[in-house]
Amino acid sequence: MNTRAVVLLSGGLDSATTLAIAREAGHDCYCLSIDYGQRHRSELDAAARIAQALGAVAHKVIHIDLGAVGGSALTDDKIPVPVAGVQPGIPVTYVPARNTIMLALALAYAEVSGAQHIYFGANAVDYSGYPDCRPQYMRAFEALANLATKTAVEGRALQLHTPIIELSKADIIRRGVALGVDYAMTVSCYQADAAGRACGVCDSCRLRRTGFEQAGLPDPTAYK
Amino acid sequence: MNTRAVVLLSGGLDSATTLAIAREAGHDCYCLSIDYGQRHRSELDAAARIAQALGAVAHKVIHIDLGAVGGSALTDDKIPVPVAGVQPGIPVTYVPARNTIMLALALAYAEVSGAQHIYFGANAVDYSGYPDCRPQYMRAFEALANLATKTAVEGRALQLHTPIIELSKADIIRRGVALGVDYAMTVSCYQADAAGRACGVCDSCRLRRTGFEQAGLPDPTAYK
Repeated sequence: MNTRAVVLLSGGLDSATTLAIAREAGHDCYCLSIDYGQRHRSELDAAARIAQALGAVAHKVIHIDLGAVGGSALTDDKIPVPVAGVQPGIPVTYVPARNTIMLALALAYAEVSGAQHIYFGANAVDYSGYPDCRPQYMRAFEALANLATKTAVEGRALQLHTPIIELSKADIIRRGVALGVDYAMTVSCYQADAAGRACGVCDSCRLRRTGFEQAGLPDPTAYK
Repeated sequence: MNTRAVVLLSGGLDSATTLAIAREAGHDCYCLSIDYGQRHRSELDAAARIAQALGAVAHKVIHIDLGAVGGSALTDDKIPVPVAGVQPGIPVTYVPARNTIMLALALAYAEVSGAQHIYFGANAVDYSGYPDCRPQYMRAFEALANLATKTAVEGRALQLHTPIIELSKADIIRRGVALGVDYAMTVSCYQADAAGRACGVCDSCRLRRTGFEQAGLPDPTAYK
């Protein structure tokens, strides 16, 4: 059995939990963080600490200037991050084709590292407005991956795992705590400061805070 | 009718022809070049000249350090570019998941620029050893694209066009010449020098040279 897995690791709560799940499943984890010019760079520092704490075999960071493409509040300084809670429709924090780009890079890393598994902490509950967080999108990517690479041509199938895609934030937190994840290490805020402290008011902070409340667990997040 | 199209433009012969075909079809062309750390950087200079010469509306370059992923002779200095002609199997110049990465970035640019068309000069004849140059791969990406983005969610379908995928090099050249492409501007060589002059011996040079011969047209390539 091939035990190698590429794990997309942003440094946030969801991807840290996903890494813990991949490790629990017996995989050697090759973590991949994408620096796509996001405002919350402290997430990348968090990713490095989490990869080490959760026993990853390797941690790679790939830089890509998605700011050059524009169109999102997360990469374009001219678009403000919303703080007023959930708005109808697709949020301005949606980064065009972000998950497609991240999964494409994970696929490249999987091929180079000999991994037949990709773990991705996408969530269709919190991010219901993001088209590329839906399960049918994930199945379409897996189908593509199995046509795209040497690995596929050589008949070794590639599996895309999205173990938290249907979980509520509270259930993700419960799962991670059971697996020993230290959420004090993770950064979820869309506009965290250089030390990784959270704003407490953006959509991501709100979802995270509510998650700890609903899980009945203490919130270890450092707020500004 | 939506007339905007993103055209992936490498600066080589195939993508220049594809841009000419997209323009001929009546599209406003938003060209996208990916600087993925390839050795032949003079291709990017060529892309800028070609975009201008063929009347593109815009030309964007996105940088991504695929050298960090490794695994290809085109991005890893430790792997030599082969010069001995066609070898069996998948060539070492294959960049892992390269077309998936480039199409993902084209999809992001299409969404931001409001384009419902992506033109991609992939070729399944010359690059029969590359899994991500096959027509079935292209259909899978189009299916993914139509699940991935705001545009898709809003019911405006995205089309992936690969107009030269089944053409021989000679037929591509004949088509481009008929559309007024000046191939002296294009750089195909895997190891062109800073001025864009070709080595004449790598797989890409060999295919190009043979293409002009078989088309019965003069080869305007500048060789070292």
